[in-house]
Amino acid sequence: MSAAAPQHTDETPAFNGQPPADFPIDRSLKIYEETLKDEFTNNVINAMGPATAPRTREIFTSLIRHLHAFAREVNLLTPEWFYGINQLNKMGQMSDEKRNEAVLVSDVVGLEALVDHITQAHILHTSHGATPSAILGPFYRENSPRYPNGGDIVQKHFEGEETALVHGRVIDIHTKQPLAGVTIEVWHTAPNGLYEQQDPEQPEFNLRGTVVSDEDGRYAFKCLKPTSYPIPYDGPAGDILQAQGRHPMRPGHIHWRVTKPGYGSLITQIYDRQDKYTYNDSVFGVKDELVVDFVECKTGEAKWELVYDITLSLDKETAKLQGL
Amino acid sequence: MSAAAPQHTDETPAFNGQPPADFPIDRSLKIYEETLKDEFTNNVINAMGPATAPRTREIFTSLIRHLHAFAREVNLLTPEWFYGINQLNKMGQMSDEKRNEAVLVSDVVGLEALVDHITQAHILHTSHGATPSAILGPFYRENSPRYPNGGDIVQKHFEGEETALVHGRVIDIHTKQPLAGVTIEVWHTAPNGLYEQQDPEQPEFNLRGTVVSDEDGRYAFKCLKPTSYPIPYDGPAGDILQAQGRHPMRPGHIHWRVTKPGYGSLITQIYDRQDKYTYNDSVFGVKDELVVDFVECKTGEAKWELVYDITLSLDKETAKLQGL
Repeated sequence: MSAAAPQHTDETPAFNGQPPADFPIDRSLKIYEETLKDEFTNNVINAMGPATAPRTREIFTSLIRHLHAFAREVNLLTPEWFYGINQLNKMGQMSDEKRNEAVLVSDVVGLEALVDHITQAHILHTSHGATPSAILGPFYRENSPRYPNGGDIVQKHFEGEETALVHGRVIDIHTKQPLAGVTIEVWHTAPNGLYEQQDPEQPEFNLRGTVVSDEDGRYAFKCLKPTSYPIPYDGPAGDILQAQGRHPMRPGHIHWRVTKPGYGSLITQIYDRQDKYTYNDSVFGVKDELVVDFVECKTGEAKWELVYDITLSLDKETAKLQGL
Repeated sequence: MSAAAPQHTDETPAFNGQPPADFPIDRSLKIYEETLKDEFTNNVINAMGPATAPRTREIFTSLIRHLHAFAREVNLLTPEWFYGINQLNKMGQMSDEKRNEAVLVSDVVGLEALVDHITQAHILHTSHGATPSAILGPFYRENSPRYPNGGDIVQKHFEGEETALVHGRVIDIHTKQPLAGVTIEVWHTAPNGLYEQQDPEQPEFNLRGTVVSDEDGRYAFKCLKPTSYPIPYDGPAGDILQAQGRHPMRPGHIHWRVTKPGYGSLITQIYDRQDKYTYNDSVFGVKDELVVDFVECKTGEAKWELVYDITLSLDKETAKLQGL
């Protein structure tokens, strides 16, 4: 027998990987395989070698057990799994230094907010009165422009914008004293709902800035009163929202990353109480302690004023725990 | 107050996102937040709108519950979560039409094999004697060259290779009759452990081919006796193996995709009983019924011979369930 020249065939049905809309599972079917019992899952867990670090073992043991339990519980079928695989790969393919789709997906299923709650309970000790953390979100950028206190982070103006002056003091929760030399990075969207890196019409680092607290722990900057906006919904995170019949809106907020070199960092957000999405957030990020009231600015420096003091629970131990 | 020209600062510690090797969790800390209780998870689940398809609701309800339970169980902290986020994005960024890293990651934690078990129990009814399915793996390519029966899929030869003639019949489990016109796609690695798309030295579609069963249900092709090889371990899947102290080896195997247009498909693999990794597979894909014995080929057409009959449980209902 000898081979003919290879030729392509198009008789074969394509493997399209789309899950049927509502998969008709016959629940009367008994899954017969021994490997479907816990024994299969235990084998996967027990494949970890003796040199596996304890924390790695703890995380993977739980992750594998829950992943398998999920697949069994819903009788996850190959076309559905493959749909998920494609969405996972698409997530990375859409991500670059200006977009982080894995964070967005994690956000719409509440995972980042939950991890933030766990982390602040273990690291930031906010139960003792420190300013609570909030999720980082996918739009943080390092090295935003440094401004003097009172500097204006607005590089481009928008019709209908409302200016705001934000200022306050940074206090150490342990000593109750003002903290000098604290780096405060802030970032928020423009009134069109876009962060600068999403919007070719905005200058680089528009509505982002870094200020440093002075010897009295005081900081100040000018920005815009934040407006609600949709998270990007043209990717896997948007597909999840659409499949679940959910809106993509976040309440207006300002992001903060507050750092004292060698002392760790606090990542947080503040939310405008007047915003209609503050209690209906697509990424479950709002905490009551982070809801603030903008008031009319009497000095004329801006339309609105927000006085916001930050109580930090940062120290060398926190920095170590944060891996910094 | 007026803003100075923006300038960059490098005082701010970088957010490196690396998890500390062994995170020192203080388990005596009580997680105080109301939101850490089931209420938070229920809110995320209840955000699904009334128009959510029942299967979508079922899958997300279970997925969200298990994801959150995992995060709580291990006290997942932000730097660890962010490490995972980076790995997830890297997965997609490494994937293209020639590599599917999300499949590899899914494989090393046993998920694809488990989903395959569940699917075959629900769709292929292998409990009734049909040939069991196995995982697709990340190296399937559509439109491999069509050969006549007996064709040789080896386009490039390797020193030390061992040729094999594989043939048998395709039987319908329902009628017990031979099945004609069944498309059989096969693919395997070269003796250097690489699939053709991983190896610039191999011709396109080397060691891949499509044959179609004749009127007696007979098929035949020539290939190489498969050799064990490592899955690619230079990405997130490899990072998992390394963190867990595991080897990346798969036992030698031939992949099959067996399709009758309009009748659905069987995706499977066969494993060489003599291979030392057959009972120690890095992706947990081996099933006892798929372990085969190559015997010396007496006709001289090849060094080895494998007679392998395939019993199909495909029908129009299966095709519908598979979304084809």
